[in-house]
Amino acid sequence: MRQSKLFTKTRREAPKDEVSQNAQLLIRAGYISKEMAGVYDLLPLGLRVYKKIENIIREEMNMLGGQEVLFSVLQDPEIWKATDRWDEKKVDVWLKTKLANDTELGLAFTHEEPITRMLANHVSSYRDLPKYIYHFQLKFRNELRAKSGVMRVREFVMKDLYSFTRTEQELNDFYTATGVAYENVFRRVGIGEMTYLTFASGGVFSKFSHEFQCISTAGEDTIYIDTEKRIAVNEEVLTDEVLKDLELDRGKLVEAKAIEIGNIFKLGTKYSSALGLTYKDETGKDSPVYMGSYGIGLVRLMGTIVEVLCDDKGIVWPETVAPYTVHLINLAQSDEKKNVFAEELYRDLVNAGVEVLYDDRDARAGEKFADSDLMGLPYRIIVGKETSADSIEVVKRADGKKASLSREQIIAGAFSKI
Amino acid sequence: MRQSKLFTKTRREAPKDEVSQNAQLLIRAGYISKEMAGVYDLLPLGLRVYKKIENIIREEMNMLGGQEVLFSVLQDPEIWKATDRWDEKKVDVWLKTKLANDTELGLAFTHEEPITRMLANHVSSYRDLPKYIYHFQLKFRNELRAKSGVMRVREFVMKDLYSFTRTEQELNDFYTATGVAYENVFRRVGIGEMTYLTFASGGVFSKFSHEFQCISTAGEDTIYIDTEKRIAVNEEVLTDEVLKDLELDRGKLVEAKAIEIGNIFKLGTKYSSALGLTYKDETGKDSPVYMGSYGIGLVRLMGTIVEVLCDDKGIVWPETVAPYTVHLINLAQSDEKKNVFAEELYRDLVNAGVEVLYDDRDARAGEKFADSDLMGLPYRIIVGKETSADSIEVVKRADGKKASLSREQIIAGAFSKI
Repeated sequence: MRQSKLFTKTRREAPKDEVSQNAQLLIRAGYISKEMAGVYDLLPLGLRVYKKIENIIREEMNMLGGQEVLFSVLQDPEIWKATDRWDEKKVDVWLKTKLANDTELGLAFTHEEPITRMLANHVSSYRDLPKYIYHFQLKFRNELRAKSGVMRVREFVMKDLYSFTRTEQELNDFYTATGVAYENVFRRVGIGEMTYLTFASGGVFSKFSHEFQCISTAGEDTIYIDTEKRIAVNEEVLTDEVLKDLELDRGKLVEAKAIEIGNIFKLGTKYSSALGLTYKDETGKDSPVYMGSYGIGLVRLMGTIVEVLCDDKGIVWPETVAPYTVHLINLAQSDEKKNVFAEELYRDLVNAGVEVLYDDRDARAGEKFADSDLMGLPYRIIVGKETSADSIEVVKRADGKKASLSREQIIAGAFSKI
Repeated sequence: MRQSKLFTKTRREAPKDEVSQNAQLLIRAGYISKEMAGVYDLLPLGLRVYKKIENIIREEMNMLGGQEVLFSVLQDPEIWKATDRWDEKKVDVWLKTKLANDTELGLAFTHEEPITRMLANHVSSYRDLPKYIYHFQLKFRNELRAKSGVMRVREFVMKDLYSFTRTEQELNDFYTATGVAYENVFRRVGIGEMTYLTFASGGVFSKFSHEFQCISTAGEDTIYIDTEKRIAVNEEVLTDEVLKDLELDRGKLVEAKAIEIGNIFKLGTKYSSALGLTYKDETGKDSPVYMGSYGIGLVRLMGTIVEVLCDDKGIVWPETVAPYTVHLINLAQSDEKKNVFAEELYRDLVNAGVEVLYDDRDARAGEKFADSDLMGLPYRIIVGKETSADSIEVVKRADGKKASLSREQIIAGAFSKI
């Protein structure tokens, strides 16, 4: 992509009402745009990051045997009344709307109810189970205070997966497998090291649920980490009894602020019983289906990556989620030969399958470098007046490491090994 | 995909309240699920069709120079008040919602206002234009009567593209190019032949807008077609004056019912003026930006393909949008050798990059054939007790044409040339 064609521009200042680092950087670098408190748009660079995160999650969900669907935002009150989650005194995050005929509908904040009801049309026998169903869909939440930038918002896409299994053992096995898939996701997007499987409050069915908490001073949660065992406990369940249960030593735990970037939850038969999702077992007996639910908020994950990896110059994207791998900076536009060299290098990199943002703008070197630091692409390749086919400067955004590579090395992808 | 693993099942009957052919077939074949009147979910097969349509549209939008974004559903009243489109007396399709602090927000039924406001942060000079911005995003409409299956719904994903140009001429040129791109889309999804560029009512800025109308008895619109010139006039603008303008002869026009599957509209400077989107021209003078808007509803397009290509046995997908290209039917599960032959054929087809739905279910031949007809995949490949490596039956869904091909021919893709 030619940066001169990209409609977004970087800006020196984020909106005055934006206090969070993640949204400030993403807005200044042209990844997102703010509609109002708690509502953001994805601009072209932001959408590219989003799609890379989505694809990583999709691959992991498909590996688990998940089948992708797309369920509606508008919600039928009937099914939510059946599970006692329609009343705003029970669920205070609802946003609701009204049809012309005065019928009140909900805007989904989660999707257990509709997916469970739908599945009752497709499941009858034990042979129809287990099934794992997921989608990437908007959720709406009536947050009182939308702060923390893209972390706590009123509208966001969540990947939510629901498991439907015959027995508690089948649920437990899938729950464990999903935990591993989640660890894969967080490792692949570059924040596996600082993310901990965290014991949190469960429900009627299960003593604990589990969160994936990423250490960050921007986090809203407080967790207590056993760094050797690589697990943590959310402060909401930190009791002597729990510590004994988990065989953790309070003296060894480290307190940290953290961002919840995923959670997995055993639901038991609560929703299937309320909504009539049963199956006939081998003996012909009707039994309710065991369910679990598993969520990841995509833009929150994007914001977390920004928070935990950025530096004082801007964003630092891991290669797996960067909107482009290479930021090719042309500083030689006034030198006809070198300008042609830059143009050809751009073309050859694109032809080699490299994702390149090409800064062909008519701008000063200082401005280009500052923008490049802010935007945070993994590798910067610079064509200036000193550049030759044997010597092209490459800079790694994450650590500032520099190397001089030949044109051939660059086209062969050697920039990613400096 | 093994059909035995797919969670959806076909059904004999659609819901009783579903009168439209498109939704009846899509529900019975397991492509969609009905939440309530005018609200549908996409199930795995439906989502695959949807994604293929989305990719075709995306390719055509990118060819036009479009840059993809993702704008929010929740809408800030301020910008809609600025264009006089907030009041429900002016725009009766609004669905609205309320935050905990009683602030009323809209659910987007279109996106001119937010995209225009955002762009004002990124455009200042004539050098920043033209720009073309699109997204695939949910729209909500407070339809009084949601009928016609997936054609007229309360929640749907639209591809909406907005053009921002310096002059009326630039707008006209892009408008024409978008018309061609739309024709490409409708041809590529298999309904180009029966789709007509149709003159419809314009607005203050332009005498006409244009619709793409696909001939169908399920259509809600009436159009008058000049089959030689391959253009049509919507009845809403059919006057002698218009016919004279367009040099059409009333006597030659053919009346038909049609489904509007796309529309393109010149907006002039209405929204840019109201929302302060201006640019400085070469002389330093501020001018408002010329805009156009261009929409395609994706699931309506899916429903139209079903309506116009289906037969009395079920859906007939064109290869470009089919969820899978091949329906491999195993009728030889009781014959161990032939069963292994079918399993190996499935594996080899998948390895050859063919998208295959493999009916490995324990079911009767009649049921498998009826389901296959209903689901409408382009090529059926049958492994039965008579099948050998030299002779495998292939049936084309669209016309029932049969051929006997060898295993090698099938793996080489010859089934698509019968």
